[in-house]
Amino acid sequence: MARKLPPGIDITEFEGALAAFAEAIGIEWVFADESAGVSSYRDPFAIVDDDHFEPSAAVAPADVEQVQDIVRIAGDFEIPLWPISTGKNLAYGGPAPRLPGSVVLDLKRLNKVIEVNEEFGYALVEPGVSYLDLYEHLQKTGSKLWIDPASNAMGGIVGNTADRGVGYTPYGDHFAMQCGMEVVLADGSLVRTGMGALPNSNTWQLFKYGFGPYLDGIFTQSNFGVITKMGIWLMPEPPGYRPYLITFPREEDIEQVIEILRPLKVSLVIQNAATISNILLDACITGTRSQYYTGDGPLPPSVLTKIMTDQKIGMWNFYSALYGPEPIMDATWGVIRDALSAVPGARFYLAEDRPNDPVMAYRKKLMSGEPTLAEFNSINWTGGGGHVDFSPISPITGADAMKQYSMIRDRCAEFGFDYLGEFIIGWREMHHIFMLLFDGEDESQKTQARALFSVLIDEAAKAGYGEYRTHLAYMDKIAASYNWNDNALLKLNERIKDALDPKGILAPGKQGIWPKHLRGQKN
Amino acid sequence: MARKLPPGIDITEFEGALAAFAEAIGIEWVFADESAGVSSYRDPFAIVDDDHFEPSAAVAPADVEQVQDIVRIAGDFEIPLWPISTGKNLAYGGPAPRLPGSVVLDLKRLNKVIEVNEEFGYALVEPGVSYLDLYEHLQKTGSKLWIDPASNAMGGIVGNTADRGVGYTPYGDHFAMQCGMEVVLADGSLVRTGMGALPNSNTWQLFKYGFGPYLDGIFTQSNFGVITKMGIWLMPEPPGYRPYLITFPREEDIEQVIEILRPLKVSLVIQNAATISNILLDACITGTRSQYYTGDGPLPPSVLTKIMTDQKIGMWNFYSALYGPEPIMDATWGVIRDALSAVPGARFYLAEDRPNDPVMAYRKKLMSGEPTLAEFNSINWTGGGGHVDFSPISPITGADAMKQYSMIRDRCAEFGFDYLGEFIIGWREMHHIFMLLFDGEDESQKTQARALFSVLIDEAAKAGYGEYRTHLAYMDKIAASYNWNDNALLKLNERIKDALDPKGILAPGKQGIWPKHLRGQKN
Repeated sequence: MARKLPPGIDITEFEGALAAFAEAIGIEWVFADESAGVSSYRDPFAIVDDDHFEPSAAVAPADVEQVQDIVRIAGDFEIPLWPISTGKNLAYGGPAPRLPGSVVLDLKRLNKVIEVNEEFGYALVEPGVSYLDLYEHLQKTGSKLWIDPASNAMGGIVGNTADRGVGYTPYGDHFAMQCGMEVVLADGSLVRTGMGALPNSNTWQLFKYGFGPYLDGIFTQSNFGVITKMGIWLMPEPPGYRPYLITFPREEDIEQVIEILRPLKVSLVIQNAATISNILLDACITGTRSQYYTGDGPLPPSVLTKIMTDQKIGMWNFYSALYGPEPIMDATWGVIRDALSAVPGARFYLAEDRPNDPVMAYRKKLMSGEPTLAEFNSINWTGGGGHVDFSPISPITGADAMKQYSMIRDRCAEFGFDYLGEFIIGWREMHHIFMLLFDGEDESQKTQARALFSVLIDEAAKAGYGEYRTHLAYMDKIAASYNWNDNALLKLNERIKDALDPKGILAPGKQGIWPKHLRGQKN
Repeated sequence: MARKLPPGIDITEFEGALAAFAEAIGIEWVFADESAGVSSYRDPFAIVDDDHFEPSAAVAPADVEQVQDIVRIAGDFEIPLWPISTGKNLAYGGPAPRLPGSVVLDLKRLNKVIEVNEEFGYALVEPGVSYLDLYEHLQKTGSKLWIDPASNAMGGIVGNTADRGVGYTPYGDHFAMQCGMEVVLADGSLVRTGMGALPNSNTWQLFKYGFGPYLDGIFTQSNFGVITKMGIWLMPEPPGYRPYLITFPREEDIEQVIEILRPLKVSLVIQNAATISNILLDACITGTRSQYYTGDGPLPPSVLTKIMTDQKIGMWNFYSALYGPEPIMDATWGVIRDALSAVPGARFYLAEDRPNDPVMAYRKKLMSGEPTLAEFNSINWTGGGGHVDFSPISPITGADAMKQYSMIRDRCAEFGFDYLGEFIIGWREMHHIFMLLFDGEDESQKTQARALFSVLIDEAAKAGYGEYRTHLAYMDKIAASYNWNDNALLKLNERIKDALDPKGILAPGKQGIWPKHLRGQKN
């Protein structure tokens, strides 16, 4: 097999760069061929050819200084780097680089929980710290602070926050809860944002904005720098916690449910990043499609009814929780119950009503900040392990929910896939997450999956819906949909890119932003 | 009097530029001499020489296209522009430009409330819209949405938010409640951020982050662009509202009070941007210093006691409010009362207990989103009208509050000024606002005020406290205090500045960020 190289770099130059990397961080931390494990940096659930988003090598520096060294060497040799935190962003490309042949900058060894402040409620972490790591750290130290995990316990806190992921507790908007960064720029220089720019500052993790332009946002979903430290706010354990599930029996109930939830969310009666999952997103946790149905095409109504009956769930299932002192939880539960009782057939469950339900069990964990791996079960629904998420944003209205849902459902039926999805209700917007499951070994299914995904992006954009993040394979296409006024925003991003990284070393192509010399090409 | 000109521009070039401006927007909207009102763009409360921060002219375009024209013309003639929204940032320089001789770009004619969305809770406004304008608009249309005003009703929503001002309701972190911008860049191009980059987007004012780097923050406290439209989230009128005042009799109580408030704020038992004002900040609303004392130096204890007795206030006065359904307000009030009863001599008042108290009356307005001009009374305390705010950030601890307070109090005594101040308790930080009052006609007092201000910046920085915004005269000095790692953050800002505004047209010197050709000079 021909060796993968960075574009425009010959083998001699490449080996020179690898030698320089090895000199800087030790040869055992430079992974340059199969035997050294470079294949572990591929996209595990590739929707395109397995080897398309393949790195040429990976390097794993030990500390910030070594990150600076790596970046400087990459600049000297003009080698593109693809920084990853833990590389577990599995529905969007995992550890694989957007530009084939890039060198993965694996930050897993920067895995220190630098500080947890119990009094103020924050942690300062390095990019290699996973949600599970921080959770275990807090458990070990007897902390009364909660984290807000991503659905995958192995996910990196820095990586997920930088990709603007969302969680399940009242701190579910991860970027909103971020405070203070340290960043290595493409020239190897080191910057601290916000109050971190003040020597001896006592508020780096307490006040986000600092003095002058507030820059943290430009290091999210971007390729302008490598985050090496990040502060996040942690929620103090509330005096009470009561997770609940409300099930709704009919497909079209989603419309009414969302209309009822909007005012409850805007006024914060519902405090957390609450989710409404469709029947299959719950069913897939404990079962497989073939247990219920072996035919092709959409599951017939009789099968759906059987799943609902077997699992005591609805066509839509609203998972949320109450947080606070008992009397306030009681009062709030009354308001929520009253409001959602308007939906015919709605059923109300507290966690204790479903002692043996594994879905309730893992949702209960997530909504109180305990990371789990339960959602991994979902990829067994159809088998084959491939999955990629399609994630449009919409206003919180029943009409929008129904429109998005039926659009995707119909296209799924047309292209031969099941609809597994959920709406995550934010403060003023919904994240709709459709999990497209496909068999990674079946080329014709992958072709169909790509065709479906492409149609969904176009249809959504036409209806005014944009995606909030995406898999490597769709970064260009989605960036191109944000094209108001002749791509003014992308052009602005490109100007910042050129100023901060003129050689285009850092994550070329991330979110559709290419360095000058690769712009307008097909990569 | 010699005509003020932009630096490096001769009168012929300047008149050429004025003619081009007039051509673009109409001569009646170009203010180029005293008779045309250019003096109204001076700092009304200048702490340095009255004419130091003096503009050469002002221009008032009618719409976005005219703003683009102005910026392009300024680029052609290399004329520095100083954009203002309503120019009422009175404690920090008002409408005056940082670079003497700049042309003020007055956006007052862009004064449309473009949209108010009752269902989702937001407004989209132009920069000329003041808090009062939006409030009146909402009143007129019978809206059930609240604004969160700055202390000055005439302040511009866009300007205050871009300067990252804070308010009084649960939506008191103004930038946190901002969603979506339209910005004119220095080359005259027009960008929409977030979901605004998606044509036909239905979530521009609903989802802040969009796709790719989140850029809005770089247009706050900066000179990277001119904001021409901005979305802000508005709070739905809660089912109940109960403002209250808790007074504390002793100076040193601030320490205990803050310790009690921290956990109540972090857990959101106290929902709004609550403030603790010192005795004089309340007293100055209804009286003047000379009514109580005609001597120099700090007010003696007997005088302070008399003020406390006369006005039924404390040495510290905590203004906050309950929001929500009655039973939840009752429960919350119980918790707050219990907690703060630990402070000996604490007295608890609801608004109805103080029907004739003008301070309670205006605080009641502010905390429910009704703009007022009441705080203007404060500048009559010592007479002479000059005031400038010193605004360090600190952790929410009693020790920090006491340390900052006593540091400033002692320096005030030393330099001959009264301490009027308040702590605004945020979610994880405090904004400490010290209002330095001085007689603008008394040169020796202004000299003392400058000396005091300078000492305060240095002392605060040494103790790890940085300011969150500042007057024109102190932008360089404060930016220089954020100098971690050899001014890494300022250098990064300068690189972005050079990329986006290579000619240095927009607001040179804003927050210490100068364009290349003016860097390192004294301006």
